[in-house]
Amino acid sequence: MKLISYVHLGEARFGAAVEGGIVDLTGLGGVETLREAIAADMAEEIADYLEGRAAELSFSNVTFLPVIPDPAKVLCIGVNYAEHKAETGRPDVEHPTVFTRFADTLLGHRQPLVKPHFSNRFDLEGELAVIVGRGGRNIPEDRALEHVAGYACFNDGSVRDWQRHTGQFTPGKNFPASGGFGPWMLTADEVEDYRTLPITSRLNGKVMQEATLADLIFPLERLIAYCSTFTALAPGDVIATGTPGGVGDKRVPPVYMGPGDLAEVDLGPVGTLVNPVIGEDDL
Amino acid sequence: MKLISYVHLGEARFGAAVEGGIVDLTGLGGVETLREAIAADMAEEIADYLEGRAAELSFSNVTFLPVIPDPAKVLCIGVNYAEHKAETGRPDVEHPTVFTRFADTLLGHRQPLVKPHFSNRFDLEGELAVIVGRGGRNIPEDRALEHVAGYACFNDGSVRDWQRHTGQFTPGKNFPASGGFGPWMLTADEVEDYRTLPITSRLNGKVMQEATLADLIFPLERLIAYCSTFTALAPGDVIATGTPGGVGDKRVPPVYMGPGDLAEVDLGPVGTLVNPVIGEDDL
Repeated sequence: MKLISYVHLGEARFGAAVEGGIVDLTGLGGVETLREAIAADMAEEIADYLEGRAAELSFSNVTFLPVIPDPAKVLCIGVNYAEHKAETGRPDVEHPTVFTRFADTLLGHRQPLVKPHFSNRFDLEGELAVIVGRGGRNIPEDRALEHVAGYACFNDGSVRDWQRHTGQFTPGKNFPASGGFGPWMLTADEVEDYRTLPITSRLNGKVMQEATLADLIFPLERLIAYCSTFTALAPGDVIATGTPGGVGDKRVPPVYMGPGDLAEVDLGPVGTLVNPVIGEDDL
Repeated sequence: MKLISYVHLGEARFGAAVEGGIVDLTGLGGVETLREAIAADMAEEIADYLEGRAAELSFSNVTFLPVIPDPAKVLCIGVNYAEHKAETGRPDVEHPTVFTRFADTLLGHRQPLVKPHFSNRFDLEGELAVIVGRGGRNIPEDRALEHVAGYACFNDGSVRDWQRHTGQFTPGKNFPASGGFGPWMLTADEVEDYRTLPITSRLNGKVMQEATLADLIFPLERLIAYCSTFTALAPGDVIATGTPGGVGDKRVPPVYMGPGDLAEVDLGPVGTLVNPVIGEDDL
């Protein structure tokens, strides 16, 4: 199933993306948000409800929200593909590199990313996001995938000069409306082996990054185990798993995102996240 | 005024700390939490309400919560005192070093900090926390203090080995129940010049860190201006402003926190935060 969060007639809702549009699920079993639906483990109930139903709403009639609009935690993994690690020149490390994004940095599918006024180094980072299903602490690697509710496309939009003001990435990763998360969550049961997933990012149609999830330095199982050691994971938490080589900042000459551009993160069967880019003056 | 968050008879409440105890403010003006009271700018209404009232509840009858139990953002500043910067060996930077803590890492006054099972390098960091009053973006330095609701003691408890697994501090700063925030918020109107505030941390009564807020490398005005450039600040957000020299990890031999220890952060007129330390096995 493909589960989405969206706004229709001014109200935040959640539903399923089906052929030709959306089936609204808001209120099913008393649940109002996708995060609550994940926490209530409603996959089976939703599947039953969808049986034989056709789209009620066209995608063009809604505003996409981030897949989970209200995650308690957004954990992001840095330098987790060998090619990207090489281009950044960062040293070998024995553990995943973890930073965080606030939820207000993220937008849904088709919503415009905002290039900050104070930087011209706004860069695209295509990623696979894991959405936590069952929460937990000290999750062992061999049970880690049981804690995944599903997968989504993620654009870890990065303001490179602010990311490198100091050793800590926080400022460059937290400008409002600088990242994308969507269009939907593909439930984990529809992904037989995440390693086979392709990941491609495009800027104005031109391929910027291309890899498969088999290329991760630290695989999903390790990321979930590691993160759950220092923090408690909860339903709806997000782990953005890192970006492949080819980021614009490391190209010669560099390639950045600016007003009028179109950023895409394509994860094959998981979906394709598309976001136009605007400037702060366009707000 | 000293405003606090606490649990009484199983219910989360907020109130004022007065001579001998607490005056409950929960429900005043329809407001249920200190964060909401800050957002509603209720200082004057609270002051009127407190006029002539005596303590209704003794401190020993409540469980202290973190001053703001539900902040949307906890921004922490690293290496912001020259002596601490020297002992860490970190280079000069032109901008504040910013990392984040999740709210579930923080405990109230007297609640036990939990030394993680996976580390023996659990370290005390005494700090002044700024609690944001009026929110904003791109706040200029010369208006920054107008956005401060008040001040509190903060223990940015750090798990040093996990902090240095990679270049990003996130894991070492986010173990559950590893930091302290309390006992209360002293409202900004009672602090004429924050630079005169003393800051002292003690472990088992022994002074570990001692400085004044005049020693900050980046003063509060700059921290607020800088943070509000890359993120929108909202009422109840927290900025922990960095720790002075003398951290246990840099002593020879090092001094860490473990079960049975008592950690204190003393900010003179702002208050003194006291937390015992336990191990995970004591939970």
